[in-house]
Amino acid sequence: MNTQDKLFALRRKMDEAGVSAVIIPNADPHQSEYLAGHWQTLKWLTGFSGSAGTAVVTKTKAGMWTDFRYWIQAATQLNGFDLFKQGETGVPFFDRWLADTLSPNDRIALDGKIVSAAQADSLKKQFSQKDIVLETTMDLISDLWQERPTRPGTPAFELDIVYAGETRKEKFSRIRKKMADYNADCHVLAALDDIAWTFNLRGEDIHTNPVNLAFALMTMDKIRLFIDPAKVSPELETALRTDGVSLFDYDAFYETVHTLNKKSKVLLDPEKVSDFIYQAVKMRSDIIEAPNPSTKFKCLKNKIEISHIRDTAVKDGRAVVNFLHWLDTSDTPKTEMSTAEQLLHFRKEQDAFVHPSFDAIMAFREHSAICHYSADPDTNLPLSPDAMFLTDSGGNYLTGTTDITRTVHLGRPTNQEIQDYTLVLKAHIAVATARFPATARGYQIDAMARRHLWQQGLDFGHGTGHGVGFFLCVHEGPARLSTLPVDIALAPGMLLTNEPGLYREGRYGIRLENMVLVVKDRETPFGSFLKFENMTFCHFERSLMDKTMLSSAETNWVNGYHQMVYDRLAPGLEAPVRQWLKEKTKSL
Amino acid sequence: MNTQDKLFALRRKMDEAGVSAVIIPNADPHQSEYLAGHWQTLKWLTGFSGSAGTAVVTKTKAGMWTDFRYWIQAATQLNGFDLFKQGETGVPFFDRWLADTLSPNDRIALDGKIVSAAQADSLKKQFSQKDIVLETTMDLISDLWQERPTRPGTPAFELDIVYAGETRKEKFSRIRKKMADYNADCHVLAALDDIAWTFNLRGEDIHTNPVNLAFALMTMDKIRLFIDPAKVSPELETALRTDGVSLFDYDAFYETVHTLNKKSKVLLDPEKVSDFIYQAVKMRSDIIEAPNPSTKFKCLKNKIEISHIRDTAVKDGRAVVNFLHWLDTSDTPKTEMSTAEQLLHFRKEQDAFVHPSFDAIMAFREHSAICHYSADPDTNLPLSPDAMFLTDSGGNYLTGTTDITRTVHLGRPTNQEIQDYTLVLKAHIAVATARFPATARGYQIDAMARRHLWQQGLDFGHGTGHGVGFFLCVHEGPARLSTLPVDIALAPGMLLTNEPGLYREGRYGIRLENMVLVVKDRETPFGSFLKFENMTFCHFERSLMDKTMLSSAETNWVNGYHQMVYDRLAPGLEAPVRQWLKEKTKSL
Repeated sequence: MNTQDKLFALRRKMDEAGVSAVIIPNADPHQSEYLAGHWQTLKWLTGFSGSAGTAVVTKTKAGMWTDFRYWIQAATQLNGFDLFKQGETGVPFFDRWLADTLSPNDRIALDGKIVSAAQADSLKKQFSQKDIVLETTMDLISDLWQERPTRPGTPAFELDIVYAGETRKEKFSRIRKKMADYNADCHVLAALDDIAWTFNLRGEDIHTNPVNLAFALMTMDKIRLFIDPAKVSPELETALRTDGVSLFDYDAFYETVHTLNKKSKVLLDPEKVSDFIYQAVKMRSDIIEAPNPSTKFKCLKNKIEISHIRDTAVKDGRAVVNFLHWLDTSDTPKTEMSTAEQLLHFRKEQDAFVHPSFDAIMAFREHSAICHYSADPDTNLPLSPDAMFLTDSGGNYLTGTTDITRTVHLGRPTNQEIQDYTLVLKAHIAVATARFPATARGYQIDAMARRHLWQQGLDFGHGTGHGVGFFLCVHEGPARLSTLPVDIALAPGMLLTNEPGLYREGRYGIRLENMVLVVKDRETPFGSFLKFENMTFCHFERSLMDKTMLSSAETNWVNGYHQMVYDRLAPGLEAPVRQWLKEKTKSL
Repeated sequence: MNTQDKLFALRRKMDEAGVSAVIIPNADPHQSEYLAGHWQTLKWLTGFSGSAGTAVVTKTKAGMWTDFRYWIQAATQLNGFDLFKQGETGVPFFDRWLADTLSPNDRIALDGKIVSAAQADSLKKQFSQKDIVLETTMDLISDLWQERPTRPGTPAFELDIVYAGETRKEKFSRIRKKMADYNADCHVLAALDDIAWTFNLRGEDIHTNPVNLAFALMTMDKIRLFIDPAKVSPELETALRTDGVSLFDYDAFYETVHTLNKKSKVLLDPEKVSDFIYQAVKMRSDIIEAPNPSTKFKCLKNKIEISHIRDTAVKDGRAVVNFLHWLDTSDTPKTEMSTAEQLLHFRKEQDAFVHPSFDAIMAFREHSAICHYSADPDTNLPLSPDAMFLTDSGGNYLTGTTDITRTVHLGRPTNQEIQDYTLVLKAHIAVATARFPATARGYQIDAMARRHLWQQGLDFGHGTGHGVGFFLCVHEGPARLSTLPVDIALAPGMLLTNEPGLYREGRYGIRLENMVLVVKDRETPFGSFLKFENMTFCHFERSLMDKTMLSSAETNWVNGYHQMVYDRLAPGLEAPVRQWLKEKTKSL
């Protein structure tokens, strides 16, 4: 079916169901950021393959909303859908647009098995102000979608305690203590990374995210894991049972959640369970809304994890330096796609590497201005010695997850490129050198970075940083460094990225990204202060820095960082690379 | 009755009512920041006179919670109550403390006529997790409080259109347009400053806040104002009726709100109406929760208001410069309290002055470390030429409200005092020079100021800035510059303060405060940018600045600002003051 056929069939379904509009979010039953093919409904319907978007179909209109990062990509990919640039002045969000477009008593369908309870609740309230009804019990898509990919079924495997640093029994016990604090006797888990962390399990069910498709239900005496039995080896099953985990079919979860003990007090996070689950629990039990305890625990890396992350930073730094050396010195003709392969080759040489932590962004010339560019055979540019090249990539190692971006110029940079690079570097240094009280929030750190650009009338449309998992998702909550008012205090053990950028559409983009770990700084009469420890080792481009724009403190930071990069990486590099790095890291 | 007698009587009441605890917030039926004597229940019960605090009485304990600004004051004033330092690590908030202290099925009383609907709702949810019941229909205090001050009854008066810049009929029409956007047919107003702005009325019902005690109800065809008839002159009554306003007794409001048309759709702000009002409306009508349209309109000063504010800045600056000159040069013996009188005298010389916009903070030596210090005959220090003096004051003029803080040293400052002053000045300059996109939030600007202190392990416990009314409350929502995640974009026309500080308990405090108006900066490919226009003219202390700590941009800012201060103020100053100011504002 082409888009027109799909829209025609969907509108017939809508007529049958008596609804005036359908909302298609980019979501799965676990509120995952990246989706297994089985749940890529948005892509199937609209052609858009980005990781964030929402489509709306009414009887006469079809629109797709996505944010800044994907405007360029969506404009190319969309077919039969109007693009709504979410966040642009004067462009209503899809919910507002629907409220303005529909009439009182109209009904909107949204599949409650994939939308989060929190979003469904907020939409219901908003639409009810206009007497518009949101129905979350209908799935109008599944019948239409022939050749839908099956649900993923990769094997689950144990993350050894030498990597995880804490047994699952210890984790269960900490979670139950939190449940007791909340006066809860039951806890529903649907978020795949929370489940992976809690059970010390990993898998390959979502491309580049080492998780397993599963649900979990914890009470004070039982732990039930709902997972396809084919994914669990007999050895793993024994290990899990020994730790008190009972195994059930993935699909059995929906039935179980309907038959909880009456009057249970169920702890769940409405952002991380579907509306379907929420409504099912609510029928018989009291709901205690709170973040998953595992979300809070997981983001605070333990000592073993931190020690691995420090080692991984060195390994991953060597892979990236080898790559940048190859990029700079090898005569092989290169394309965006071939450079991705080459970088992967260097990462594979490192110990305990499993797979990339996301699809590398290898973006040449104007492609570097597209924040989440992904090269494919249609767009794949050959590299030439005359423009900027942005490389954003990461590895998933048993010893941790990495995320790093560097921007280089393959020829001679213009003054504006140098000025822009230096501004982004100043923003990066503002984060790297920040000291802040233990009450500080990510939005405060983000503002310190952004100020350097704002003063010049510049800005970038993504956050300055996001949490990073431990051999898990490269984007991990709950903390982030962004403009958004996320009310989560930064705390020692949080692993975040520091990645300010600047994008000149159609010309070039710059992003400079390291990972940073929140660590203790000092106690003063004004409170406990924290700072960041750098967790990425790779030089920045001296040839793209305008030293006159750097304060002496900033210059000192660059020189100190470069010295550290050289000292840590040199011992494991081949002589020519070592020599090349020596030059790249010499004092400004 | 002394505190022990009051507690004894209150606990007897609690027994009779079958409740295990009472919460006494510092609140009135209008969610005012400052309270008329009639509602100063917290002060009556605990002795604490600060503007923010909550008391909790159980059968065996009595505690009072207040934030950083009031810890020192509360420690002195409290009698029979334990002080809980809200915000200090390890100190639970009163709600958490109650949840931990009480047992399931215990009942807590909280007077629903004064607590906001939003706070009551949040407390109910939280307590219900522990099966503790919050009762909001009981007032256990009124019967005990003999000699309670009566409700205020000062005359209401019209704010002339030459000051207000917009007629009330135009304001009604804008509000009704917003009501229509929300699909609301009724709107409840309880916030006194929103009512004052909407009706172009002022009064003197709350000390230093020129408002009238009133409620308002707006529908698409009626506007009802509930106000004590004795407060409204026949002329004013005629003017209001001409504009379509019907007048009713203040007390009639509670009855009316119970008898709204069934199935009305009522727009109200749960932060700004009491739980009592919310529950009464909810019984018969649908509630649309949203900020009062008047809150959003009021904070964006119109052209006439802005033109008055610019003139007022010059008048008020002259009053403060006259005061600082007197402080520096007069031989009269001075005390904290006498300096307040002298400053008031200089303000009274200015056109259209009505009264102070808050009780001036005149704080010498260690008192300057108390953010909201208020001198009284018991604490009143004589000034001597050996320490820091902080003066935070403002005026309410028909032409606008002002708020300014300066800190001076009456003798020879120490190096640490100079260093601290310079850091606070750097924080101040960071705000004064900030340029930011039209999507920016106050917490981002706050972070830019705070960074200068954080890098040195320093901090301050209040926001960097708050909104300021137009001949209204000196603290006005919704925007603020603070660490809190207040999700309100800064917009042209917002009038805010810029007042970073630093307080060394028991020694001295520094605060440097100007008002700033948000104005347009420029359009770039990255969006619309905004900046601040300075709305306070008064020099800073050159003798307290360490020039080596200032960047050249910061030094230029000081010199440019000083030049502007001199140019604007000089024409209206007496020759000796003008000469003195010339010296104070010369280039660094």
